[in-house]
Amino acid sequence: MITPSLGELATRFQLSLRGDPEWRIEGVATLARAGPRQLAFLANPAYRKQLAASRAGAVVMSAEDAEGHAGNALISRNPYADFARIAALFEARPAPCPGIHPTAHVDPEARIDPGAEIGPLASIGPRARVAAGARIGPGCVVGPDCVVGPDCELVARVTLVARVRLGPRVLVHPGAVLGADGFGLAFDEGHWIKVPQLGGVVVGADCEIGANTCIDRGALDDTELEEDVRLDNLIQIGHNVRIGAHTAIAGCTAIAGSTQIGRYCLIAGGVGIAGHLVIGDRVRIQAMSMVSRSLDGPGEYASGTPIQPVRAWRRSAARFRQLDQLARALLNKDKDPTDD
Amino acid sequence: MITPSLGELATRFQLSLRGDPEWRIEGVATLARAGPRQLAFLANPAYRKQLAASRAGAVVMSAEDAEGHAGNALISRNPYADFARIAALFEARPAPCPGIHPTAHVDPEARIDPGAEIGPLASIGPRARVAAGARIGPGCVVGPDCVVGPDCELVARVTLVARVRLGPRVLVHPGAVLGADGFGLAFDEGHWIKVPQLGGVVVGADCEIGANTCIDRGALDDTELEEDVRLDNLIQIGHNVRIGAHTAIAGCTAIAGSTQIGRYCLIAGGVGIAGHLVIGDRVRIQAMSMVSRSLDGPGEYASGTPIQPVRAWRRSAARFRQLDQLARALLNKDKDPTDD
Amino acid sequence: MITPSLGELATRFQLSLRGDPEWRIEGVATLARAGPRQLAFLANPAYRKQLAASRAGAVVMSAEDAEGHAGNALISRNPYADFARIAALFEARPAPCPGIHPTAHVDPEARIDPGAEIGPLASIGPRARVAAGARIGPGCVVGPDCVVGPDCELVARVTLVARVRLGPRVLVHPGAVLGADGFGLAFDEGHWIKVPQLGGVVVGADCEIGANTCIDRGALDDTELEEDVRLDNLIQIGHNVRIGAHTAIAGCTAIAGSTQIGRYCLIAGGVGIAGHLVIGDRVRIQAMSMVSRSLDGPGEYASGTPIQPVRAWRRSAARFRQLDQLARALLNKDKDPTDD
Repeated sequence: MITPSLGELATRFQLSLRGDPEWRIEGVATLARAGPRQLAFLANPAYRKQLAASRAGAVVMSAEDAEGHAGNALISRNPYADFARIAALFEARPAPCPGIHPTAHVDPEARIDPGAEIGPLASIGPRARVAAGARIGPGCVVGPDCVVGPDCELVARVTLVARVRLGPRVLVHPGAVLGADGFGLAFDEGHWIKVPQLGGVVVGADCEIGANTCIDRGALDDTELEEDVRLDNLIQIGHNVRIGAHTAIAGCTAIAGSTQIGRYCLIAGGVGIAGHLVIGDRVRIQAMSMVSRSLDGPGEYASGTPIQPVRAWRRSAARFRQLDQLARALLNKDKDPTDD
Repeated sequence: MITPSLGELATRFQLSLRGDPEWRIEGVATLARAGPRQLAFLANPAYRKQLAASRAGAVVMSAEDAEGHAGNALISRNPYADFARIAALFEARPAPCPGIHPTAHVDPEARIDPGAEIGPLASIGPRARVAAGARIGPGCVVGPDCVVGPDCELVARVTLVARVRLGPRVLVHPGAVLGADGFGLAFDEGHWIKVPQLGGVVVGADCEIGANTCIDRGALDDTELEEDVRLDNLIQIGHNVRIGAHTAIAGCTAIAGSTQIGRYCLIAGGVGIAGHLVIGDRVRIQAMSMVSRSLDGPGEYASGTPIQPVRAWRRSAARFRQLDQLARALLNKDKDPTDD
Repeated sequence: MITPSLGELATRFQLSLRGDPEWRIEGVATLARAGPRQLAFLANPAYRKQLAASRAGAVVMSAEDAEGHAGNALISRNPYADFARIAALFEARPAPCPGIHPTAHVDPEARIDPGAEIGPLASIGPRARVAAGARIGPGCVVGPDCVVGPDCELVARVTLVARVRLGPRVLVHPGAVLGADGFGLAFDEGHWIKVPQLGGVVVGADCEIGANTCIDRGALDDTELEEDVRLDNLIQIGHNVRIGAHTAIAGCTAIAGSTQIGRYCLIAGGVGIAGHLVIGDRVRIQAMSMVSRSLDGPGEYASGTPIQPVRAWRRSAARFRQLDQLARALLNKDKDPTDD
C-alpha cells in the first residue's frame, strides 16, 4: 500500500496545497464517503454542498471552491483531471507477466515479442504480431494478420478478427469485436450477394474501446480511428467509418458505414448516425439523437421529444401525426380568403 | 420423462382441477399447438378465441375463463405464473457436475468450492471465489477478486472482469460483461485522461443478466443491483448505477452513470436514461423513450413519435422543426394586436 | 495471387467488355484509389464525378455510365452485385483444415463430421452435431443439442447455447449469441418467476448473423429465421420472433418477442419493434423508428424528429409537450363560438 503525504502529492502533480503537508493519504473516495485518510475531489458545482460535511482527509478542488474551506485542499485548475492522475496511484493493477501461458494457443506463424503477455486460453492466429508490453488477456482471439502495438491491453475475451492494427497503448474491453465483416450486401435476382470485405481496421494510439463494442473492417479501404478516440460499451462502428482524434462516444451509439466523424466531437449515448455523412470537428450530439444529414462543427445538435407522463405523451403523439394539417389550417388563416 | 397426472399437478401447485385427475401430461405447449398429452395456458385475453379449438390435454386458466370450457382445466389466480412453475418440471436441465474440467484454467490463488462446477476452457483468476452449487460454463472468464455466490450459473463465455460479487442464484447469460471499466474520462490540455475505476459491481440474489449485457464497475463506490433484478440482452448499465429490487428492464436499454432506479420498475426496450437521475419506485417507461430528467413513481412515461408512412412522417417532421414559429403565430392571434 | 484478364472476367461473369481483353487485374479498389491493375465499380450516381479522374484499370458499371468513358469497362445490369462476385476472387480466405484442434474440447456425445473443422479452444457440447465443411472458429461454444449445417462458418467466439439448428452455409460473426433464454417472466406475490424457455432457434440456409447479435430461443415454439436473412451487428431478436426470407436488418435494431417480420423487408439501424406485431412483406423501416403497431407491406415507414441545432430543438421539444393544447386552441377558432 502506498501512503503519500499531501506535500508529496502537491509536488508530484504540481498543485498548491492548503493544509498539512505531512498528512498521509491511503486511498481515494467520493466527498460523501471519504474518511480522514482518503482524498476526495470537487469538480461539479452540484456537489459543493457536500464539502462542508465531508470527512475527507483532503480535497482536490479549484481555488474558488477552496475559499473558506477549513480542511486540507489541493488546489487545481482542473480538479477532475488531477484527481484522476492521483487516483491512478491507488489502482492495484496486476504486474505484467511476460510470456505465453501454457493454455494459450499461438500459431507457429505468429510473432510474439518476448516482452508481451499472452494470457490463459488466448488464441493467436497466423501472421499476427504482438509487441512488447502488450497484454492479451484470458480468452482473447487475435486473428490472422492482426497487429497489437506496444503496451496495448486486450482485457479478456476480445476478438480481433482479421487485418486489425492497433497502435500503442490501445485498451480494449471484454467482448469487443474489431475487424468483423462490414455489412455489405448487393441484391440480385431475389437474393443477397455478400460483398467481400477486403479492408482492415486501423486504431490510433491511446484509443479505448468499450465492452461488447463492434468495429467492422472496411470493404475496400480501412475503417480508421485516429489517436485518443474513446468508445464506450455496445457501440457499433460500420465499415469505412473514420473517427477523428480525441472524439469520445458514449454507449449504444451506432455509426453507419463510410461516415466521417471529426476531431474533438462528443457524441452521447444511443445516438444513430446514418451512412456516408460528414460530421465536423467539435460537434456535440445529445443522447438518442437521429442524425440523417451531415453536421457542421463546432455546434451542438439534438433530436427527439421530451419524456412525458404517458397520457400527455399520447395526446402529443396523436397531434404530431396531424401536424402538417394543423399547420396548414393555421397558415391559411393568415391569408385573406380571397387570395386562394 | 416425467408424466404427472392432473391430480398430482393440482395438489403440488395448489390449484383446483376441473376434469380428469388421472389424465397424464407429458409436456407443455401453446394453446394452438398443444396435443392431448400437453398442458397449455390462457393468460392473455387475446388468446381466448383459441381455447375452443385447442387440442390441449389441459389448460391452466382463470376460473372466469374456465366457465363453459369443456376440457380439463387447472384453475389459477395467476395462470402465467402457475404455468411457468409447472413448465419447469419439463425442462431438461443438465445435472450439475461438480469439479474442475481438465481444460479449465484456475489460478492457484482462486478458491473453488468442491461443490462448484468449472466448465471446459473457463478461466478463473487470482483470489476469485466460487461457491458451492455454482456452475461456470464453457469459456467463461472470472477475473481477480470476483465472488460467485452459491447456485449461480454463468451459462457460457461470461466475463466477470474484476471486483464483481454475485449473490446466490444469479443467472448470467453468454457474452455478458460485468465489471469492465466505467467510462470515466477527464479532459485536459487537448487529450483525455482515464479516471481509474476503483469500485466494483454488486449483484443481489436471484438477479438475471441477459446475453451481451454490460454492467460497468463503479468509479469509487460500487455499481449495485438489488435482489431479483431482471435484465434482458444487450443492456448497458453505467458505473455507479443502482437498480432497486424486482425491477425488470428489456433489451437494448442504456442507463448512464450514477443514475438510481427504484424498485418494481418496468423499463421497456431501447430506452435511454441519462446520468445522475433518480427514477422512483414503480415507474414504467415505454419502449425507446429518452429520459433526460428524474421521474417520480409510481407513474408511466413515454417519449418519441408514432410510426407513420414515410411521406406523412416527412411532413410531420418538417413541421416539428417549425413548431415554435407555428405556436407563436397561433398564440399571437389570441392577443389583441394593440397589446404588443 | 490470381491475375485474370478482363476478357476472362467478362466471360466468367457474363459481362460485356469495352476495352482491352488482355489487360490483367490483380485486385479491387474504390474508384478514388484504384490503380491501373485494380478493378473498381460505379453503382451510386453520387460517385459519377470520380470516374473521369480514376486511374482504375477497369470499372464495372452500367452501359449508360460507360457511354463516353474512355477506359476499360465491364458493362453490367447490376454493377454492385457483379463487382461483389468478382471481388470474391481476390479474397484470401484461409483454406479449410478439417479436423479437431488439439486444444478444443469435444463432448464424447457430440458428432463431428470428419470434413468439419473445430478450431483452437472451441467447446462442443453433448449431442451437438457439426456437418461436413463447417468451420467452428477459435473460442466458439456449441451447446447441447445444437446442429451446425454443412459449410457453416462460426468465425470466432460465437455461442450457440442450446437447441440451435443452423441450415447450410450460415455465417455467424464473433460474439453472437444464439439460443439464450428468452426474457420470459411472470410476476407473482412480489417477485419474478422465470418462465422456462423450452423452444429452440432455427436458422435457414445462407443467413448471416452479425457480431454480438443475440437471437433468443423460443419459450415453447422456436424462434425462426427463413433462408437468406441478413442481420448486422448488435441486434436483439426476442423469443418466438419469425423473420421471413431475404429480409435484411441493420445494426442495433431490436425486435421484441413473438413478432413476425415478412419477406424482403429492409429494416434500418436502431429500430425498435414491439412484441406480438405482424410486419408485412417488403416493408422498409427507416433508422431509429419506433414500431408499436403492425405494418402492412409493401410500404415504407418512419418515426422520430429531425436533427436540429440544440437551441432550435429545445424550442420544438417544449412545444411538442404543448401540442394538444395548441391544436385545441387552433381548432376551436374554426368553430363559431356559439357552437360550444
